[in-house]
Amino acid sequence: EIVDAIVEILAGPRPLAGRRVLITAGGTLERIDPVRYITNDSSGKMGFAFAEVARDWGADVTLVCGKTDGTPPSGVQTIRVESAEQMKEVVMSRVPQMDIVVKAAAVADYRPLHREEHKIKKKAETLTLSLVRNPDILQAIGEWKQALPGKRAPVVVGFAAETMELERNALDKLNRKKCDLIVANNVAQEGAGFGTDTNIVSVYGADGFAEHLPQMSKKAVAQRVLELAKSRLAPEGL
Amino acid sequence: EIVDAIVEILAGPRPLAGRRVLITAGGTLERIDPVRYITNDSSGKMGFAFAEVARDWGADVTLVCGKTDGTPPSGVQTIRVESAEQMKEVVMSRVPQMDIVVKAAAVADYRPLHREEHKIKKKAETLTLSLVRNPDILQAIGEWKQALPGKRAPVVVGFAAETMELERNALDKLNRKKCDLIVANNVAQEGAGFGTDTNIVSVYGADGFAEHLPQMSKKAVAQRVLELAKSRLAPEGL
Repeated sequence: EIVDAIVEILAGPRPLAGRRVLITAGGTLERIDPVRYITNDSSGKMGFAFAEVARDWGADVTLVCGKTDGTPPSGVQTIRVESAEQMKEVVMSRVPQMDIVVKAAAVADYRPLHREEHKIKKKAETLTLSLVRNPDILQAIGEWKQALPGKRAPVVVGFAAETMELERNALDKLNRKKCDLIVANNVAQEGAGFGTDTNIVSVYGADGFAEHLPQMSKKAVAQRVLELAKSRLAPEGL
Repeated sequence: EIVDAIVEILAGPRPLAGRRVLITAGGTLERIDPVRYITNDSSGKMGFAFAEVARDWGADVTLVCGKTDGTPPSGVQTIRVESAEQMKEVVMSRVPQMDIVVKAAAVADYRPLHREEHKIKKKAETLTLSLVRNPDILQAIGEWKQALPGKRAPVVVGFAAETMELERNALDKLNRKKCDLIVANNVAQEGAGFGTDTNIVSVYGADGFAEHLPQMSKKAVAQRVLELAKSRLAPEGL
């Protein structure tokens, strides 16, 4: 207990003490058959950085994880999922209890229309895979928030991973998805995006806020974005 | 040096001393666009087990790795690749120098016909992905061996990961691919296949050999299969 107390003192202020934060991390995995799947390059590092910072700031953290490299941080409640549909179910059931929701996962936009029960044999020279749109979790949260006029709703942070027309795509996403903040990065840029330890992001707010951050560690990005989210929280007890 | 000498003595016999062994491990990764790809559940554990055993038995080991969980074993030459086409190029350029080739990687059978330069935007409700057959590396090795009559060629070990009709599919593959040994497992079975630490395999030889192994560690499977491969090696110096 003495050690815990010292750690607590050394840890400094706990600006998110008493707050509940939900973070999604990693890529979803959309199965084609029992052994094959479609996924993306997300490593989970950005989401893990958010989970660590929120935990260190005293929040009660729920981390919803798809495919990730490495192990989720300790001291947070981690829930493993595979597909976008599973992630949506877990997230939507928990969103109403949250103060801040950070959607750092790279959710697959499409999934195979049919999931084959047995491994597809490689008979044909070509194969056509029919894909259908996955549920849009950020959009679902936005719609749920809009249906709650006057009620206490979490601050929602979305991500836009783009390879071109970053600002236009990010602002368009912010607007369509009704999130409070959007963190945009060009995943094709050196030192940014998937798998790296650093990121280069711009943050846009529904209130017109815009900030272009230089290349910094994913942890520093998480700190800045959580500061921005905290300043948008409704006063406690409301 | 004293420690090395002790390790060498403790390590016991080195039945593959002076032999060159090439092992492929993990799954290949076939890109759809800059962030999305198709892959499979292979963890690389089976290939890593082969690399460890071959190294401990004194072989000069080359490990050709796709996507894997965890880190390749030390003391082997590791070459990282992404796609089946890259893996084929690396493997085919090295096969002629090898004594044993173990194709433990799960090579994607199909890849996207087109690789998009920019991230595909999720506009449409449905999407059709055209796939084409990947090069068959095991088949290419078999054809290369057949074109070398009387010459010294490596003992080739293939794998058959199936979810049904295991024996029929494995014997058919052994015959078509002209490998010396085939290791067949039902990847849908508990305690076998992808990601697990154990495997349940049957081994079939071009010489009519057949052996059904019980559930055992992937390392024990590698030991048994390398014994079988070693007994099929041409005498040294030939």
